[in-house]
Amino acid sequence: MIAENSQQSSDIVDVMRELGAAAKAAARVLATATPAQKNLALTAAADHLLATSNDILAANAKDIAAGHAKGMSAAFIDRLTLDHDRIASIAKGLRAIAELDDPVGRIIATIERPNGLKIERVRTPLGVIGVIFESRPNVTADAGALCLKSGNAVILRGGSDSHHSSRAIHAALTAGLEQAGLPKTAIQLVPTTDRVAVGEMLMGLDGTVDVIVPRGGKSLVARVQQEARVPVFSHLEGICHIYVDKSANLAMANEIVLNAKMRRTGICGAAETLLVHKDIAAGTVPALCKTLAAQGCSILGDVPVCAMFDDATPATEEDWSTEYLDAIISVKVVDNIDAAIKHVQHYSSGHTEAIIAEDKSAVDRFFAEIDSAIVMHNASTQFADGGEFGMGAEIGIATGKMHARGPVGVEQLTSFKYLVHGTGQTRP
Amino acid sequence: MIAENSQQSSDIVDVMRELGAAAKAAARVLATATPAQKNLALTAAADHLLATSNDILAANAKDIAAGHAKGMSAAFIDRLTLDHDRIASIAKGLRAIAELDDPVGRIIATIERPNGLKIERVRTPLGVIGVIFESRPNVTADAGALCLKSGNAVILRGGSDSHHSSRAIHAALTAGLEQAGLPKTAIQLVPTTDRVAVGEMLMGLDGTVDVIVPRGGKSLVARVQQEARVPVFSHLEGICHIYVDKSANLAMANEIVLNAKMRRTGICGAAETLLVHKDIAAGTVPALCKTLAAQGCSILGDVPVCAMFDDATPATEEDWSTEYLDAIISVKVVDNIDAAIKHVQHYSSGHTEAIIAEDKSAVDRFFAEIDSAIVMHNASTQFADGGEFGMGAEIGIATGKMHARGPVGVEQLTSFKYLVHGTGQTRP
Repeated sequence: MIAENSQQSSDIVDVMRELGAAAKAAARVLATATPAQKNLALTAAADHLLATSNDILAANAKDIAAGHAKGMSAAFIDRLTLDHDRIASIAKGLRAIAELDDPVGRIIATIERPNGLKIERVRTPLGVIGVIFESRPNVTADAGALCLKSGNAVILRGGSDSHHSSRAIHAALTAGLEQAGLPKTAIQLVPTTDRVAVGEMLMGLDGTVDVIVPRGGKSLVARVQQEARVPVFSHLEGICHIYVDKSANLAMANEIVLNAKMRRTGICGAAETLLVHKDIAAGTVPALCKTLAAQGCSILGDVPVCAMFDDATPATEEDWSTEYLDAIISVKVVDNIDAAIKHVQHYSSGHTEAIIAEDKSAVDRFFAEIDSAIVMHNASTQFADGGEFGMGAEIGIATGKMHARGPVGVEQLTSFKYLVHGTGQTRP
Repeated sequence: MIAENSQQSSDIVDVMRELGAAAKAAARVLATATPAQKNLALTAAADHLLATSNDILAANAKDIAAGHAKGMSAAFIDRLTLDHDRIASIAKGLRAIAELDDPVGRIIATIERPNGLKIERVRTPLGVIGVIFESRPNVTADAGALCLKSGNAVILRGGSDSHHSSRAIHAALTAGLEQAGLPKTAIQLVPTTDRVAVGEMLMGLDGTVDVIVPRGGKSLVARVQQEARVPVFSHLEGICHIYVDKSANLAMANEIVLNAKMRRTGICGAAETLLVHKDIAAGTVPALCKTLAAQGCSILGDVPVCAMFDDATPATEEDWSTEYLDAIISVKVVDNIDAAIKHVQHYSSGHTEAIIAEDKSAVDRFFAEIDSAIVMHNASTQFADGGEFGMGAEIGIATGKMHARGPVGVEQLTSFKYLVHGTGQTRP
């Protein structure tokens, strides 16, 4: 039995390495594919998605039935479920990505040297991207399309719970690639749901994978961050802070906090902690907490907050570093902006923080001293999103400092090379 | 004895973690240090270097004596040796870095959104950089200065062979930092030469090290690439190719090949392989090989080259993937540009390649299909250098595709964050 398992594992290793080699070969073709070719693949894939939507829904029905049989939660089943509208929206997403500017080949810097050398820094694809996701089958299309647009081959590894759905969507992408004369292996879906496959991807498939993007919950991201031996674009969590300075426009603070916490509580840009300057706490905290509570938000407060708002529960030390992804907020009164900055520096996950203030010097300090991927002034943290940043679409948000930081769109999925134009120069 | 060793190891682990924590704290201060402050630290360090040059030479004499006692090679002793001129040149290097534009805080992109949000992408320091180097004591100053200029704290780990010299140079840097009111821990030199310290740095010192830069020979770089659990800016080798197209200006090809191979044979941008189009081979290869041989270069050739040039030695398969760093070149005749591109794609180390051609379509194909950090047209591969690219100075050349690629100067030692300027926007 053990022998059989290790035989299976070694088969999976072989399968995965073949996927890696095929992706690398496809990446070479994609690197010089024209924008028109890539865009045709995307729009044709959108057509195929719509044309095969009944097949996709039939495949999705199998996944849903299996989910019910396993007693999955309603929220889980909802994430998994496709219908004609959702398929139409996926197809629309593919067309929107086709319409983005093509990043590959764009000159991002030019250097003219005294010796006449002209040096251009030009965007190139990264190569091969591994995307590991969970139950949402639409990631197959979204991630596949972003990687293709940026000239990268992609290896998609979806969760076993959505495997039939992902496979059906993947078939439409493959048809689009074929129609555009691009290699089918530009977008590959891992054919096995065995977890050994994930481990192999994290090891880089024999040097063929250039970066891994995990799309899913904290445990997936944590495993990827822990085990990956190739670079990872990811954020583990979004413990987003809002600091309301004593100079804040209080009506504005009220609206922004409400929006940042309650618009959608389950996204990474949702606020988790509210810090309020002590000078305005008495005039702000009770009203703000009341409005939040009226919308169904639980308030966890430090001692002053609990004294000002009866329905607040005392916050524990752990609460300041917890991403609730729910209608819960931790509220703390701070002595001054120094204390606010210190708190953020200590507890932040490096995702998004906001200051609400009218005093420019407070804003300048917050902007200079907070080193998160996104730092905002007088705006809701829920704007932390590639679409809202004008990137068209994002494959995720990164909190690392290397290469990509903040929303990861098609530009962030590229590298660059230097092209040096000479006229016979030799180095003295 | 074993117990004692592991006690020592655990002491070193503690020391290294303290270094990491101190560097992280210093990085926070450096991130908001003014350009004037950082530049003062650099110019003051240059002054201290000159003022203490006798101490530095005395320290260096100890390293040299130990090197002789160990029977080190003349080349090794030369790399290790300092004199008043070399110290003056190190000091000059510090002043040159002070004069570079400060990258931190520079706005590198601005996005205006329809809702009035103004989003700026602004350069930030990376944080903490670990530099692991070998025998050249000047790296202490060069690398320390580049990291400081880019707002990063640095942990320097020099080779045991140059430890006294590095320590003396480091003292001058520390004096400069103190004079500028910056934390001494902004530039730390690992106080032990135990190899356990390197292992700890490669593991990231408890999440405090953001990137590792190895400076040294292939075995050091290979170990770092293999073992590091944090990102690495490096190149393992520079197997640089020159392809002479049938459209080449042959006189230019001659000069460039000679320069690319022979100007300095020991640098990573030196050419290792020459590919010549078959249509011009008979008219080019014998003369080129003769000129190279006259300058002391050994020729390894494929069958046609050996037939054309009597003094050529048959090249083995291994030769095409060997970085000689010496007066040796591998020469091959190729059927066409496709064969040249295929050869480069197969054997290249991703560093620098050049095409010599007058035919624009050949150049375009070479530029599009060769995915090395630097691709040149009608110029010597020896220009692959941060200084020659106008970056002022470089900490090394990277062949990875993530974050930094090609010469790594102060800009490449930065990350970025997004600053979002709002006027009360909430997300609908």
